[in-house]
Amino acid sequence: MAKAQPKKRARSSANALLNATSALMAERNSVDVTFSDIAKRSGVNSALIQYYFGSKSGLFMALLERDAGPTFDSLDKLVSANIPAPEKLRHHVSGVIKVYHRYPYMNRLIGSLSIDSESEAAQFIAERFTKPLAAAQSAILEQGEDEGVFHRVDPMLFHFSLIGSCDHLFHARHSLKFAFGVEEIDEDLQRRYAQHISKILLESIMRR
Amino acid sequence: MAKAQPKKRARSSANALLNATSALMAERNSVDVTFSDIAKRSGVNSALIQYYFGSKSGLFMALLERDAGPTFDSLDKLVSANIPAPEKLRHHVSGVIKVYHRYPYMNRLIGSLSIDSESEAAQFIAERFTKPLAAAQSAILEQGEDEGVFHRVDPMLFHFSLIGSCDHLFHARHSLKFAFGVEEIDEDLQRRYAQHISKILLESIMRR
Repeated sequence: MAKAQPKKRARSSANALLNATSALMAERNSVDVTFSDIAKRSGVNSALIQYYFGSKSGLFMALLERDAGPTFDSLDKLVSANIPAPEKLRHHVSGVIKVYHRYPYMNRLIGSLSIDSESEAAQFIAERFTKPLAAAQSAILEQGEDEGVFHRVDPMLFHFSLIGSCDHLFHARHSLKFAFGVEEIDEDLQRRYAQHISKILLESIMRR
Repeated sequence: MAKAQPKKRARSSANALLNATSALMAERNSVDVTFSDIAKRSGVNSALIQYYFGSKSGLFMALLERDAGPTFDSLDKLVSANIPAPEKLRHHVSGVIKVYHRYPYMNRLIGSLSIDSESEAAQFIAERFTKPLAAAQSAILEQGEDEGVFHRVDPMLFHFSLIGSCDHLFHARHSLKFAFGVEEIDEDLQRRYAQHISKILLESIMRR
């Protein structure tokens, strides 16, 4: 028992750093957070960021893994499940939107870590997130074609329209507030947006 | 003639600063550029940024006005033109995509200037870009309903799906490269993407 304590403490400090980073990014609607912001918010000494995560980009990768990692297990299960392709696409869109609702900084963080395409962070994102996501979407589209319910569609164009449309409501909080007077995205708006996106994507590929 | 020289020189220095900022943002796929980067690239002393634009956010607002301002005149003309609503929507999507192709940093810049929603920059963006854009899209949707060719659709959800999907191909260059092996967005890809987006949006709202 006594031996486990330091590990437990380390885990809890690392978690406090991740929680603080996540909260700051969500509140500010920006991924510009400094070591000192994170230390202040978490109550954990900023030197420990380096100790636990190696660097700020190490911390950011750990945050992405924590936030989005588990959804890839669900996505694998969805792709291999025995349900019709249109149903899968609806579930997928609603899953993507749930992630962006919960972690509105996600695509911004991915973008900022991918600027230097040779970096370890960019490679991590490509292998861990981008490629599996594109592959899962391709598989759903292929299944729909095989079932004779989907038209053939370019999976690359489809990918960007799906991700971009799912993300933008959460990304562009300023537009939501200023152009439409909506201050908060509640469960109802999240659900209606997911239905809207599923509808536009499905209507365009369903055979009639 | 002699009197006009200083003005001309000022305009040309101000333009050099705008050009340098635009080029740096496009190359880096990021809006993180410093006074010193801009000075170095433009060959104009960084103190002149303050002199011409007041501040970095003043420079960024001037850049947005230069890049996107003129498209709002075209948008007004499009909305009031005597052509059917589906045609207008296609032109609009293709216009939005052209702007993002040319200035891939645009939505990121808008986002970064809108973080502090009380700031002058955020107000400028709301009044100059966001509200007119949303109003133009609403007008096109209403025209389509009046013509009996469009279903009723929530203009707010429609706005976010249109802007998000148009933007993402240009925004997520890292995904394009890593997941699909595409290094450059050429005219053909831009055109195909505009067709794809118009199709998904139109198919979902056209009455049959």
